Amino acid sequence: MSNSLFETHRETLDRAIKANHERTYWSAYPEIPSGKIYGENAKADGQAAYEARLGKPFVIDQPGTVGTIGAEVSPFGPALAITYPKADLDVLLPAAVAAMDSWKQADAQQRVGVCMEILHQINKRSFEFALAVMHTTGQAYMMAFQAGGPHAQDRGLEAIAYAYEAMTSVPANVKWSKKVSKTDTIVLDKTFRIMPRGVAVAIGCATFPTWNTYPGMFASLATGNAVVVKPHPAAILPLAITVEIARSVLSEQGFDPNLVTLVADSVDEPVAKELVTRPEVKIIDYTGSSEFGNWIEDNAKQAVIYTEKAGVNCVIIDSLDDLRAVTGNIAFSLSLYSGQMCTTSQNIFIPKGGVQTADGNKTADEIAQAIVKAVTWLLGDPKRGSEILGAIQSEKTLKRIEQAKKDGGEVLNDSVPVENEMFPDAKARMPLILKVDASQEKLYMREMFGPIVYIVQTENTDQSIELTAKASREHGAITCSLYSTNPDVIAKTENATAEAGVALSCNLTGQIWVNQSSAYSDFHVTGANPSGNATLCDTAFVVNRFRIIQSRIPVAVEAEAHASV
Amino acid sequence: MSNSLFETHRETLDRAIKANHERTYWSAYPEIPSGKIYGENAKADGQAAYEARLGKPFVIDQPGTVGTIGAEVSPFGPALAITYPKADLDVLLPAAVAAMDSWKQADAQQRVGVCMEILHQINKRSFEFALAVMHTTGQAYMMAFQAGGPHAQDRGLEAIAYAYEAMTSVPANVKWSKKVSKTDTIVLDKTFRIMPRGVAVAIGCATFPTWNTYPGMFASLATGNAVVVKPHPAAILPLAITVEIARSVLSEQGFDPNLVTLVADSVDEPVAKELVTRPEVKIIDYTGSSEFGNWIEDNAKQAVIYTEKAGVNCVIIDSLDDLRAVTGNIAFSLSLYSGQMCTTSQNIFIPKGGVQTADGNKTADEIAQAIVKAVTWLLGDPKRGSEILGAIQSEKTLKRIEQAKKDGGEVLNDSVPVENEMFPDAKARMPLILKVDASQEKLYMREMFGPIVYIVQTENTDQSIELTAKASREHGAITCSLYSTNPDVIAKTENATAEAGVALSCNLTGQIWVNQSSAYSDFHVTGANPSGNATLCDTAFVVNRFRIIQSRIPVAVEAEAHASV
Repeated sequence: MSNSLFETHRETLDRAIKANHERTYWSAYPEIPSGKIYGENAKADGQAAYEARLGKPFVIDQPGTVGTIGAEVSPFGPALAITYPKADLDVLLPAAVAAMDSWKQADAQQRVGVCMEILHQINKRSFEFALAVMHTTGQAYMMAFQAGGPHAQDRGLEAIAYAYEAMTSVPANVKWSKKVSKTDTIVLDKTFRIMPRGVAVAIGCATFPTWNTYPGMFASLATGNAVVVKPHPAAILPLAITVEIARSVLSEQGFDPNLVTLVADSVDEPVAKELVTRPEVKIIDYTGSSEFGNWIEDNAKQAVIYTEKAGVNCVIIDSLDDLRAVTGNIAFSLSLYSGQMCTTSQNIFIPKGGVQTADGNKTADEIAQAIVKAVTWLLGDPKRGSEILGAIQSEKTLKRIEQAKKDGGEVLNDSVPVENEMFPDAKARMPLILKVDASQEKLYMREMFGPIVYIVQTENTDQSIELTAKASREHGAITCSLYSTNPDVIAKTENATAEAGVALSCNLTGQIWVNQSSAYSDFHVTGANPSGNATLCDTAFVVNRFRIIQSRIPVAVEAEAHASV
Repeated sequence: MSNSLFETHRETLDRAIKANHERTYWSAYPEIPSGKIYGENAKADGQAAYEARLGKPFVIDQPGTVGTIGAEVSPFGPALAITYPKADLDVLLPAAVAAMDSWKQADAQQRVGVCMEILHQINKRSFEFALAVMHTTGQAYMMAFQAGGPHAQDRGLEAIAYAYEAMTSVPANVKWSKKVSKTDTIVLDKTFRIMPRGVAVAIGCATFPTWNTYPGMFASLATGNAVVVKPHPAAILPLAITVEIARSVLSEQGFDPNLVTLVADSVDEPVAKELVTRPEVKIIDYTGSSEFGNWIEDNAKQAVIYTEKAGVNCVIIDSLDDLRAVTGNIAFSLSLYSGQMCTTSQNIFIPKGGVQTADGNKTADEIAQAIVKAVTWLLGDPKRGSEILGAIQSEKTLKRIEQAKKDGGEVLNDSVPVENEMFPDAKARMPLILKVDASQEKLYMREMFGPIVYIVQTENTDQSIELTAKASREHGAITCSLYSTNPDVIAKTENATAEAGVALSCNLTGQIWVNQSSAYSDFHVTGANPSGNATLCDTAFVVNRFRIIQSRIPVAVEAEAHASV
């Protein structure tokens, strides 16, 4: 097998490695859904490809298929009516193990070349992915294109770049020579093999099926493991297409396609618990609820586990210049994809004494009202509102909104339905904004995933910082946002959030939001609080997916003498 | 705090980083106990320093001391009669947490400079360490000097070099700039902090108290954590001296000495279970029995855990040229330190049909007899015998020898006492060599730590390879040795041991033995079988001892304009 794919993609890989170290802005895959970039027909082709999937079995020619499964319904309305192969693990997993034979004998360049080609093929079909992601997650089209397409691909490449660097930091062979006496020198020929751990399972979530799955999937595959992709039952299609593309590239390159397989399941017939505790499974990447993430950590003892669970993200408002710019930014970040991002803020802490602004002191209630006003203005235009909100992915989220209202707090903005002109059946709601007091921890010091926001009145900013740190330490947090014009408050918050293990964003206004995480620069999840034990991506995310096994043998004296002539 | 210590040691650090990547032979600390290297008085000074410790309390001025503890007895005879501070964890651990405050604010260069200075000070006192290691572990003097001194220091430096590289692979600050529209560019100032996990516990073993403890201890300390050193009750002194030196250097450099503390215990009052499950403890490095290692993995869920446990190491004899060279090498490797190395071979597999040698086919019994002859010759000279065997560290090992005899197998070499002229009370035994059949797995397919060797007659080399792989997979293994002149057998064994996750040494004769592991080149323990989950050292050993926490803030437009002038 040649390394021609590696050579094809080498420049992109080198650039990605550089980006990982520099952590300045870079992207390999254009985020603009433009015909000029992706080809004039790309959008229409993507649409046609997506529509051709609907109402049919999605065929994957993998071993151990016993019937079909699948019941995805678009959060925008229609059922997808696609079925997927139902897997017999007793057949599929041994096939995945066997598939590793030649893959682990290949070198790092061969594997990485194949992985990058898979991403390249995925990128070309970004418009198809956009629709597949949109109609499984409820993301609006533009977001589904970007987060489900190029941004996810960038996160995959970021992981591959880390994996390549880690694998090549150890030489494959070396001559070790030590003088052991005045006359004797021992020369050993040492070989260091990168050995994969075994079968890796990548468990996808319902909201970001590709973005959250690609890093673990590609990190495992690049380091020699076989990958079983287990999508969320509500968002199978984007990962099924991914598996299809991966298998096709692997086959073309002479590798066993069973290196990447799909295990689909349904809410009624879940398979994840059985899958993650199988002895063949040595690596698990998981994105999803804290409850099941904790179950995996407690039960899948045979595997190395990387989790991204959930958390309680906070905003601290201490002081600011331009109230409109701040509330506009907050309003967008709360509304985007109906608050269904793991990075969306849930609690907004405002001191009871009010907040200093360029226009003088504003009371906590005035700030709260300004946020509500910004949200209602932003979502007031039905077309813009729908494009920002998308649709609510899960019935559980709709129920959670109702529960939040029952549980308490003063309703500042009610979760009234928002109409979607294009998709009348889309489930969309205005963000529910509740006002509570800092003492009502029972209400806000818990994860309330979805468009549910607590505006919490605190004694002062010190208390806001303390509560933010507490939320991170006890419930996990992926983001924290601070608005302050006071350098001492910024420094104090930086220290507190660093100690509590949560990333901080300060004074964001304009076209940058706390929910955004940029590949090659932002470390998504810290691994330092209960929201997850890993980061997308850092060195730690890749280096334990393989082990280095050495062998050593004396260099024959004759051969050595000959070699040194 | 200046970085002058970093500058002092920078060249050595750079060389160590290079060695880690090249994996050719290198050492920072001379292994020859010579006055020319260490100073004419170094040996006498070391002896005096050691003797001055005996029969007295070893004072460490650390918080939370409640009485004393300690009952070390030299395996060579005399009781050390040293007592150590007994720690109140409720006082000591909060002090360790508090000590991290300024340490984590220091940069990687400051911390690494201090760590390297600690190693430098330890190195200067290698003769004192030699005696401390000798009279706690039972290692003979020369081995105690090398393995307890320079070789341990090299493993510590290897870990520091990995830690430095990992911490500096991410910039401390960066300006991130993205064009978000035709007119707007967002510029964020991003800060990436290396945040330690918390208190690290380094649990030492009774046989290699410094060699096995330094990597984890220095990896944790360099990455910003406080380290609590918990020695084996039988081998406290070498680590107490280590803690004393570390505290002294930390204080001199203006850091809190409680970054390194000692928690000594005794067999009657063990403290390890309480210590490793304390909430302050976030990292555990453990060397010792599989039983307690597994207990830690099951119970210390709040911590990241690195273990080196035990295993069943095998030798496969397939074919060879020079029988005398091979059996001489095997005899020394079995005898060194009375088989009390985690790298010593236990099972020697020989095909029933015999082994091809340069002098024709030798039967399995002839090979076995040649090994026994080589052992008895090697240890027949009392002075040489004592210098190789050292003394048996634990009563449990003596009992295990008797048990092995009772359990079965044909005694080819009995475990008769070996006299030590210099230390008449030293406990030393000839290695017990038992002949068994491959079918008697109950006898040899279990760890029998100490001078206990099974010569196992197999059907053929294929069976030898299978049993070796099985031992590694099911019981763990740290080394495997193969003697074969057949390239196909070598290749087959390389594949089988790589799959079973154990390092292979082929055809070792002369001054290199399977038990040896060389810092910066050999990966000690693979982390890929039950003998341990980590390697000394690789990137994976260090990168999860810290997390990266970021903060980001827009660059003020004025400041930006100003900066670009």
